[in-house]
This record gives sequence, structure tokens and C-alpha cells, in this order.
Amino acid sequence: MAGNSFGQAFKITTFGESHGKALGVIIDGCPAGLEIDEDFIQHELSRRRPGQSKIVTQRKEADTFQLLSGVFEGKSTGTPISMVIFNQDARSKDYSHIANSYRPSHADFTYQQKYGFRDYRGGGRSSARETAARVAAGAIAKTLLKSLGIQTYAYVNQVGDLKLETPYKELDLSKIEDTSVRCPDLQMAAQMVDYIKKIKKQGDTIGGTVFGLVKGCPIGLGEPVFDKLHADLAKAMLSINACKGFEYGSGFSGIRMKGSEHNDVFYNDNGKIKTKTNHSGGIQGGISNGMDIYFNVAFKPVATIIPEQDSVNQVGEPAKVVGKGRHDPCVLPRAVPIVEAMTALVLVDHLLRQRMIRL
Amino acid sequence: MAGNSFGQAFKITTFGESHGKALGVIIDGCPAGLEIDEDFIQHELSRRRPGQSKIVTQRKEADTFQLLSGVFEGKSTGTPISMVIFNQDARSKDYSHIANSYRPSHADFTYQQKYGFRDYRGGGRSSARETAARVAAGAIAKTLLKSLGIQTYAYVNQVGDLKLETPYKELDLSKIEDTSVRCPDLQMAAQMVDYIKKIKKQGDTIGGTVFGLVKGCPIGLGEPVFDKLHADLAKAMLSINACKGFEYGSGFSGIRMKGSEHNDVFYNDNGKIKTKTNHSGGIQGGISNGMDIYFNVAFKPVATIIPEQDSVNQVGEPAKVVGKGRHDPCVLPRAVPIVEAMTALVLVDHLLRQRMIRL
Amino acid sequence: MAGNSFGQAFKITTFGESHGKALGVIIDGCPAGLEIDEDFIQHELSRRRPGQSKIVTQRKEADTFQLLSGVFEGKSTGTPISMVIFNQDARSKDYSHIANSYRPSHADFTYQQKYGFRDYRGGGRSSARETAARVAAGAIAKTLLKSLGIQTYAYVNQVGDLKLETPYKELDLSKIEDTSVRCPDLQMAAQMVDYIKKIKKQGDTIGGTVFGLVKGCPIGLGEPVFDKLHADLAKAMLSINACKGFEYGSGFSGIRMKGSEHNDVFYNDNGKIKTKTNHSGGIQGGISNGMDIYFNVAFKPVATIIPEQDSVNQVGEPAKVVGKGRHDPCVLPRAVPIVEAMTALVLVDHLLRQRMIRL
Amino acid sequence: MAGNSFGQAFKITTFGESHGKALGVIIDGCPAGLEIDEDFIQHELSRRRPGQSKIVTQRKEADTFQLLSGVFEGKSTGTPISMVIFNQDARSKDYSHIANSYRPSHADFTYQQKYGFRDYRGGGRSSARETAARVAAGAIAKTLLKSLGIQTYAYVNQVGDLKLETPYKELDLSKIEDTSVRCPDLQMAAQMVDYIKKIKKQGDTIGGTVFGLVKGCPIGLGEPVFDKLHADLAKAMLSINACKGFEYGSGFSGIRMKGSEHNDVFYNDNGKIKTKTNHSGGIQGGISNGMDIYFNVAFKPVATIIPEQDSVNQVGEPAKVVGKGRHDPCVLPRAVPIVEAMTALVLVDHLLRQRMIRL
Repeated sequence: MAGNSFGQAFKITTFGESHGKALGVIIDGCPAGLEIDEDFIQHELSRRRPGQSKIVTQRKEADTFQLLSGVFEGKSTGTPISMVIFNQDARSKDYSHIANSYRPSHADFTYQQKYGFRDYRGGGRSSARETAARVAAGAIAKTLLKSLGIQTYAYVNQVGDLKLETPYKELDLSKIEDTSVRCPDLQMAAQMVDYIKKIKKQGDTIGGTVFGLVKGCPIGLGEPVFDKLHADLAKAMLSINACKGFEYGSGFSGIRMKGSEHNDVFYNDNGKIKTKTNHSGGIQGGISNGMDIYFNVAFKPVATIIPEQDSVNQVGEPAKVVGKGRHDPCVLPRAVPIVEAMTALVLVDHLLRQRMIRL
Repeated sequence: MAGNSFGQAFKITTFGESHGKALGVIIDGCPAGLEIDEDFIQHELSRRRPGQSKIVTQRKEADTFQLLSGVFEGKSTGTPISMVIFNQDARSKDYSHIANSYRPSHADFTYQQKYGFRDYRGGGRSSARETAARVAAGAIAKTLLKSLGIQTYAYVNQVGDLKLETPYKELDLSKIEDTSVRCPDLQMAAQMVDYIKKIKKQGDTIGGTVFGLVKGCPIGLGEPVFDKLHADLAKAMLSINACKGFEYGSGFSGIRMKGSEHNDVFYNDNGKIKTKTNHSGGIQGGISNGMDIYFNVAFKPVATIIPEQDSVNQVGEPAKVVGKGRHDPCVLPRAVPIVEAMTALVLVDHLLRQRMIRL
Repeated sequence: MAGNSFGQAFKITTFGESHGKALGVIIDGCPAGLEIDEDFIQHELSRRRPGQSKIVTQRKEADTFQLLSGVFEGKSTGTPISMVIFNQDARSKDYSHIANSYRPSHADFTYQQKYGFRDYRGGGRSSARETAARVAAGAIAKTLLKSLGIQTYAYVNQVGDLKLETPYKELDLSKIEDTSVRCPDLQMAAQMVDYIKKIKKQGDTIGGTVFGLVKGCPIGLGEPVFDKLHADLAKAMLSINACKGFEYGSGFSGIRMKGSEHNDVFYNDNGKIKTKTNHSGGIQGGISNGMDIYFNVAFKPVATIIPEQDSVNQVGEPAKVVGKGRHDPCVLPRAVPIVEAMTALVLVDHLLRQRMIRL
Repeated sequence: MAGNSFGQAFKITTFGESHGKALGVIIDGCPAGLEIDEDFIQHELSRRRPGQSKIVTQRKEADTFQLLSGVFEGKSTGTPISMVIFNQDARSKDYSHIANSYRPSHADFTYQQKYGFRDYRGGGRSSARETAARVAAGAIAKTLLKSLGIQTYAYVNQVGDLKLETPYKELDLSKIEDTSVRCPDLQMAAQMVDYIKKIKKQGDTIGGTVFGLVKGCPIGLGEPVFDKLHADLAKAMLSINACKGFEYGSGFSGIRMKGSEHNDVFYNDNGKIKTKTNHSGGIQGGISNGMDIYFNVAFKPVATIIPEQDSVNQVGEPAKVVGKGRHDPCVLPRAVPIVEAMTALVLVDHLLRQRMIRL
């Protein structure tokens, strides 16, 4: 039982290796009749692709996708939607040096041990290149959400020690895409960019957090007791390469609060029941309550660095590993569209599942 | 598509409401031939049950379980194992006051909205009482792990602002059960107990974190790209009542590190490949690497408090909600066996899944 | 990955052995708000239970069920519905003679080989007693179908060589329950009863077919390309003990027809599109077309017979097996409610799944 | 919850429409280390493709596939294997005449009703062209079976009234591929070919049965109580286009036998426990018993015929439908590799599942 599918009602299955022939995704369960905007899908892929700015890897992958099935006359037919991206800039030779050695904090060692065998080119299946498939599927999920007035946002709110303390409600979210680091506070964004450039010059990398936000989510999404909305969001986020942690609502800081401080008091806002505070992060008992859903996702520093590192080879002998050429000094800016995509996939899955709950 | 099952190979389905006739669990996929120790299962249930110490709720539920199927002559037969706990101390009348009002930060409102209808007695299905079923199933998962030399631990490492800073390697884990708060540092434990007692007197509640640890995990568990070992652990933990966050390895603090600091260098330890540091938390690329797996789980303060709170009733009118009688001032001590159970369930599921990976 | 669950949206999981403590079922996914009639469930169980007439086994099992969860104030809550039947007349001693021998055409041998170990009492999990759990769940599925005006029927249309040739449209289906053999043609029913009594006296058994019928099925149920409505019906039927074959619509006799004879011509019946003939059996391309769904299910003669039979024991030595006491000379009459239950479960599952197909 | 996946451990998902850009399949769960022979996959596809002989449709589809992922240096890596066939001979114009009318006994009507919308070109997703993807995946499943000494066979044993009565044990199965109709009895094959040619001249079609056979199946495959081996085979077969029925072992003829005749007596054949007869068809209690597994699959006459037929259009007005150009007079010869593929997929899935059954 391999694990390359996500979702139950809106189920995606991704395939493809970093330097194989192609990678892609099948969506099984997209409702019929949805208008599919190929330009939008391509736009989303471009937000994730390498080479989009100076603070990300300079690899040149156009990430142009082809739609192979499931859409007729511009609309989804209810049959599987498949999208494929043929690999172009697959400089496999770049990776010959790691064919026999294990890069520190990469998946080389564990893949070799698990499968007895691995496609070492560019990390093979373990490469973050796989997330392009998620972004393509996520673009369709977003289209469906938009048609229902549900909005998803994500932005970088921390890089290394640079932390944006301003609450999301005080930010102008329309500015997220104005900066290459995808932080809506322009001043902080400039600092982050400078810092990442400095890190890049050192051949080093740095981690950070992405803040995720959903506005307009209907009440009732989430399936207790295991498929709670936040539990599926947690799994979705932790399934992204380099992700180390997830918290929603008050999260890790909520543990210091007393119940009397933390509880979100209900009130009637012109016929709509709302809560005065939102430490719950829009989810109570695993089910959306109509308030904003928000969460924080931690990403470690990228494992690929330029300086030589100690390691071992496949037979356990000491070996040196050197980072070559193009790497991401900070994964955060490119993680933003991935976080958005996974958020949208979780929400659409639960929107469809919710359709079966009542008689 | 409801969400009351967890796991794919070792799949559990739980049922039952807080004040219904009974609650329980079916395990489908337990391998045949495992010796089932009913005393151990009962022992685990007792670690979770109310009334076990002065810092937890004083409700009197014996949580005595019955094994209904799947075991013959003391061993699992490979058929579904079902266990049931009949409810006894079901003072439904205690809950009449909330039949029509929504308790702040409880699931009353969202259940009502989602299902159009709810069993209001004790929170019904949303009650943490459901976790008894998980602990019973987890006891069987633990038995299987033990037979393979895999050990799972969990302990409380933070309550409110009281944080245990000592790394787990310097603690005597055999002391966890020596304190009612389940913290292996006896001095810190005493402080935590005092603090919880104080909170209890105020009729208030407080949050905290549980630290989870797995020793002896074989290399190779975890199914990329979605069912990464830590992604399934995250979902498992976030599915527990009151859980607000999960981080593994370096977690949220890893974001401040550079790649050159964070990378875990491989070395050969007498024929066994290990890493010098373990910021990866024993998992790389979603697959266990043989090092200790460790993680942190955040729990918010329990929503039930004694003081009167403002709220609304089902028709949106202002209402007052009062906590009555017996409540948990801090869920952490009782969360420990639940975290252990969910950890064991994830591991056993992936152990079985790993059996199919190679030719 | 054991196989004790059925359905995806309306998912049942059954548990329990023939002579264990109890057997039962959990339904996960029953929509909230359905009125649950416990008398009806018991009534359905009574139609399946032993001892109900002279042509079935005289074992005395009341099959009284208890509802443990998922229902509040008479209505489903959307949470798992669990039902359990505690075993009473569990004469385990009757089975000591087969503890070490393999009964011909039973599952003793295969269970022993598969699991390395088996509960030999009454066939353990392989006993048709497990189907009581299906009937209980099926009763709830039927209730849901009824609320939508969908009717399911099943009757015996062949026992040994006695075959009812009258088409179902010419039969009075209200008479099915008037005869102990559950055949609506009273004359044929009488013949069948006589024949089964004769077989019973011989200590022998006989096979037959059950005809299944659904009226009022909405257009659109079934999920190509694998979960076609008839494919799921086939699996449902073949999963019933002693079932050897399934055909729908023209079935095995359709193979002798030419396309020009077999094709069902569409016409407009006062605004409703119907087909003039119905060789398709109400399903085209795996999707219901609104016409009657009908199918045929073959059951082999029960393996338990009274005369001594040759066999081998667990170490492969020659052994004799003798049928003892109470056995079913013909499984068909009791198979009728099981076929109905499985039919209802498939339909409800697809009704719920269909809710997610369109935007 | 759409239904385009099959299998749980060796899970395939197919995509693509008859006249879309491409069709294909992802296999998730193929064990790592399997040698993948692309020539063999292409060979299997050629056995299914149109235009291979005079008794099948003369459409010219090369069905050349591309392997996109999951294989490295000739061996499976344990990651998803994806294969795609780009469509070439997509004469969409041929289908403009049915854009608005419902072809009798096709899926035009039901797809339109289910999805509210359909890709009418060549039947879209409902076309049997989708089975090419199954055959490609089945070729890999067969490779795995062969490596374990398990052989699968299928042949045509009935076309219209022409029925091959010779038991499979008396046939020379190596001759199956010697005739264009895929019947190993050359005399009967010649009769069948003549008959199909006659039918073709009439512009008509005819049905038949395919006999399936597995030799060398290990004991223990099948997961009671729902995923019995024969239940999964039934579903697999009924999911194939035009399939109307399935029976295994004694099947529908077994219903006329008494238990004393039907029971398969065990004996010890030089240390191996076998049964003297095999009415069980190699499966008892849903689990393989090591004897030959055999079954029969009924296919209706193809719905596309040349003569004009009455029908209605999408608004319910009378319409005429005319078959154009190239059609299959009898689907049976091309169904043989599809039946084999689905058989192999079921077996591999259960082989992998069986790995988790014992401690």
C-alpha cells in the first residue's frame, strides 16, 4: 500500500520523478460541469516553478503542463482529469556524484533502505519537484472553491529569525504577490529578501514558516473523529517536502492560556452566530464553524547546501558530498503556492464529503 | 464519507457516544497469531480513565472492556477484533442545561450545524471519552510493537508556562508513571501538579504539550509522498481532542537554523549507518531512518470551566453556560496514554504496509 | 489489509465469529436524521435467523440485537451506528469433532492455511452467521431507500432442477413471504418445499438461485469505470457465503442473442425516456437508467451434510467427517433477506456517492 | 467519490477518453525491484488493439504506450508507475451524428443523465478503449505473477450458440493464440470465426463467454468476509465493458447438484493436501486452496450495429441512429487479454495483501 494518493472524495494521485520522463497527477472525483481555466493552472504552476526570482533556485524548468483527459469543451466531465508535465531541463549528469553517496538530511539513505534501490537523479521521487503536480491539482480545487466564494491565502511570515508579528487582519493580503518572498508586509519582505540573498551567497539555506488562511469557509466541514478538518490539514502540510510542524488557531502558544482566556465566546451577529475571539482557528470539534481558518506551517532549511559535507556512501564508507550549481536558499517563497494548493485540496475534499452527511 | 476509521493496513473504527449505551472499537487487519493480553489492555484503559488521580476529573468510569471477537485461545485469529465498553456513570441529567445552549469552544455548535441534530449528552460523539476506544486498540498495537523490540514513550513536558527544558536523553523515562502528571522529572512534576491543583481550585483549565518518542523503529517505515510517517503521525495527533499543533524533530525551532547547522551528518557506527545529530527526528523524506523518532504535541486548555460564560442558544439568543461538577483542569496527564496509543497505531500500520514494498 | 468492510460512503464493518461472544456491525456514513425503527431491524433479523421454518436449520438463535451507538431520540445522528448480537446457543462442543479435521468444501482448510490458526467452533468467522450483521445493517439501508421510494425485492426462483420460469412482472411479489421457501408462485413454492424436505431427510443439501429486483431506482447511480453499479452488486452477492455466480439483465442467456435483438430501444413515455425492452437490466455503462434492475444469484448446495465423508486432518492423515445435528438442507430461503440486505447496501452507497458528481 | 481505481495494495487508476488527447494508467503499489519488460507490455496491448484480425474492428489504433515514471534502469522503483497512450486515429467527426442522440444499449443516455454533460466522441470515457490502460497495468501484474510461477489463461469458450464443451484440462492451452478468435480448439475456433464473419456481414453482433483459469495460485489468497477472492474477481470481470455475468467453479450449474455430489473431498497427494474434484473452483470460504481457479465470464453482443435503429435525442424526440464504418462484430477475441489483465490485477493485489496476515 503505497501512499501516492490524497483525498477521499476529491482524490489526487501524483506520479513522476525529478529527472524521469514526466510527472503529473490524476484527479478522480472532480464534479462535472466545472469550468477549467488552463491559463490559471499554468499561472499557479509558474508561481511554484524554479527560476521565478533571484531568491529561488535558478534551474530552468518551464513546468508547462498538458491536460490529457477529463475536460470537454472547457468543462470537467466528471471523469478523471489528468495533467502531465514533461521534464526538459533534466541534467542528470549533475547528480552522478550522489549516485553512491547519501546527502545529509536528504531522502537518499531512507529510499535506498526502504526500496532496496533508488532513482538517484535529483532525488528521484523524493524531490520537491513532485509538488508541481499538487499545484496543478490545487489550481482546479481553487477554481471550485472560488465558485463558492471561499478564498484561500498563504504568505511567508517568518524566515530564520525574521518574524512578522503583525496579525493577518491588519495586513493587506493583496500585496502577497508583490514581493518575491511572498510576504505582504513590504518592509519585512525587503528584510527577508536581503537575508535570503545573504544566505545564498554563503551557499547556505534557511527555514521559516508559511501562514495559511481560509476565508468564507462554510460551517460544517470536517469529519470526526479522525478526519477532523484540522487533522487533514495537518497531514496535508506535513506531507510537503521539508515541513516540520503545523499548528492551527492558538497553536503552540495556546498552551500557556487558561480555558477562561482561550474559550471563544459565541454571540449573535445580526442573525449569524459568531465567536468574539477565534483561538479555535475556525474549527471546533474538528468541524469548521464559519470563522476564519488559520494555521502556521514550519519548514526547515533546505538540505542542499554548497559547502562540502561529510557523509557515507552506500557501503558505509566515509564520503564527501558537495552541493552543485543551483539550489534554493530558502524554500519558503515557493512553498506558498504549495500550501495554498494543499489547503484547497483538503477543503474541496471535505466540501464534497459534507454533501453526504444529512438525509 | 464519515471519518471514524484510522489506518489502512491495521485499521481501526471507533463508535459510541459519551452517554450512549456503549463505546468501542473494531480492529481490522491485526495479524493472526499475536498473543492478546487482556490485563494489559485494561491497564492501558486505566491510565486514561477519569478519577485516577486528584488532578484529573473525578468522574467515576471504570472503563471495563469486553473482548467480543477476533481472539481464540488467547491469540488473534486474523479476523476483526472488537472491544466494547458499556457506559455506567452516565449522568445524562448533568447535561440537560446544555441541551439548547452552545458551550464556548466545545463542538456543540458545529455538530448541531453539521448534522442538523446532536446527542447533547456529555458532548455525545465529540467527547474525549471516545479516546478510550483508541487506547484499547493502541494496547494491541503496542503489544505487536513490543514483540518487535520497538518502544513508544510519551510524557508531559509542558503545562502552561512550566516547561521541562531537559532533553529526553537525559531523563529517566522509567519515572513517567511515578507522578500523577506523567512527567519524568520529579521536581518539575511536583511543580506541575501544584499548578494544576491551583488552576482546578479556580475552576479553570490550562494547556500544555506531550512529548512523544519511539525507540528501535526499523528503517524504512513511511509511504511517500502523502503518507509520510510524520504526516500520519501529525494527523493521528491532531485527531485527538483539544490538540492544536504538532512538530517533529527540530520542529518550529528548526526554522531559525541554517542548513549547515541543521543537516544531520551520516557516519558509520560499527557497520550501522547513523546520523551524528538528529534534527530530522528519525524521519527523512517521510521514511524512518533508524534514529529515535520524537515529536511534540500541543493541547489547548480544556473548554469546560466552572465559571459562568456568555453564549447563545440554538435559536441564537443570549444564554449563560455554567460548568457543573467534575471537569479536567488539565488534559495533559490523561493525554499521555492517548498519544502513545495513536503513535503505536501509526507505527503498526506502517510496519504492515512496509511488508508490501519489495518484490 | 483485511477485508471486513463494505461500501465507501455508507461503509459497514462486520465482526464476530459463529461461536464467539458476539457478532455485530458498525455503519459509518449513515446520514443524520434517518428514523431508525428497531422493530424493523429485528424483523429483518428474524427473516434470516435459524429455526424460522421446517426447511431451515433448527438451531435456536434468537438473534436479538442491541443498538449501541449512533442513534439519539430515534434518529441517526450521523455518527457510527453499531449493533451487536450476543451469542447464546453456542454449542461449541458440537464442533470438537472438526477441530482437527477439514470438512469438505468448507473453509476449515483455507482458514488454517491462510492464518496458520483458526477458531474451529462452528466455522468461526467463515460461518454464514456473520450475515446476520449484514442483515441488520441492510435494514437501515432499506429504511433509507424506502424514504426515497426505492423498493428492493428478492425471491427464490430455482431449487435444484425446480425452476420458476414465469417472468417477475407476472408474479405477485406480495406473496414472497407467504411461503417458507420465499417463492412468490405458490404452486412452485409447494414443490420446492416438498423437495427440500426430501433432501433434508436424506441428510443432504441442494442449491438454487435467488432473483433480485430493484424498482424505482433513480437514474445515475454507479461509478465508472470500476465501481459500476452491477460490478458492485456482483461483488456484494459473491461475498455471500455459498454464492457461486451472478448475472444481471440478460445475463448468461444474453450471449446467444444478436445485437439487433439485444439492444434496448429508447422511447419517450410521456416525457420520461424509457427502453422498450430491458435486457440491460436497468444498468447501462455501469449506471442505472431508471428501468427495473434485476439479477440472478447462484448458491451451491450447503457443504454440511449428515453422511460420513472422507477427508484429511491437519497433519494430512485420512480422516472421516460426520455432519451432526442441525443443518440447512437448502440455504436459499434464508439467503433471500441477505441478498436484499446486500442490494440495499450497494444502492445506498451509490446514492450517497452520486451526491458528489455534479458541481 | 468516483470509481476509477481498482485494487488496494496494487492499486491502479485509469484515465482518458476514447477520443481525448490520451489515455493511461497509474499503478501505485508495485513492489520495487520488478524487471519491467516494455516489449511485453506492448505485446499485450497489441493483443487487445483494434485491427489485429479480420473478425475485429478495423479501426487503426497502434496503441503505442510511453512509460513516464516509476521505472529506473529497467526495474520498478516502488514509486508510481505511469503509462500513457496518446490517441492518434481519433476520427471525432464519425461521432457527430450521435452528439445529440442516444445509441441504444450504449452509455450515452446514462452518462448524460449522471453527469449532466458528456464527451460524446466515441463514447468518451464509456468506450472500451479505456481497457487498454488495464491491459498495460495487467502486463506488469502478469510479470510479477510469472516471477512466482503463477500462470493465468483465458480463452473464448462460447460465441452465440457455439459452445466448447471440452473441459479445460483436455485442451492444449498453448494453441489459444493460434486462432484469431482465441479458442484453443482449432475446429471450434474455425466454426466461431466463420460465424462471426457471417454476423459481421449482416452488420450485426453476437455475444459469448470467456473462460478464465489460474494455475499455480498459492494457498491463502482472499480476504474474508467481503474481499473474498472470487468476489473481487467477480467485480473485476463485471467492470469490463459488455460483461453481463460471472460464475466460478461449478457456478450456475452447481445449483442443480446435491451437497454429497458437490463437496470436494480432501486427500493427501504426496504431502500436499488436494481435493479430488474441484467444484469449488480453487476457492473455499473466499480463499484460494491451491487447486486451479477457474471461472466463466459472459459478454453481451456489442451494442454498435450497422442497421438503422430507433431512438430518442437529448430532448426526448424520436431519432434514428445508424452505425457507421468500423465496429466489432464480436467482442470476445479482444476480451481475452482484458480478462487476463483483470485476473492478474486481482491476484497480485491479494498476493500483496496476504503478506500482512500473519504475525
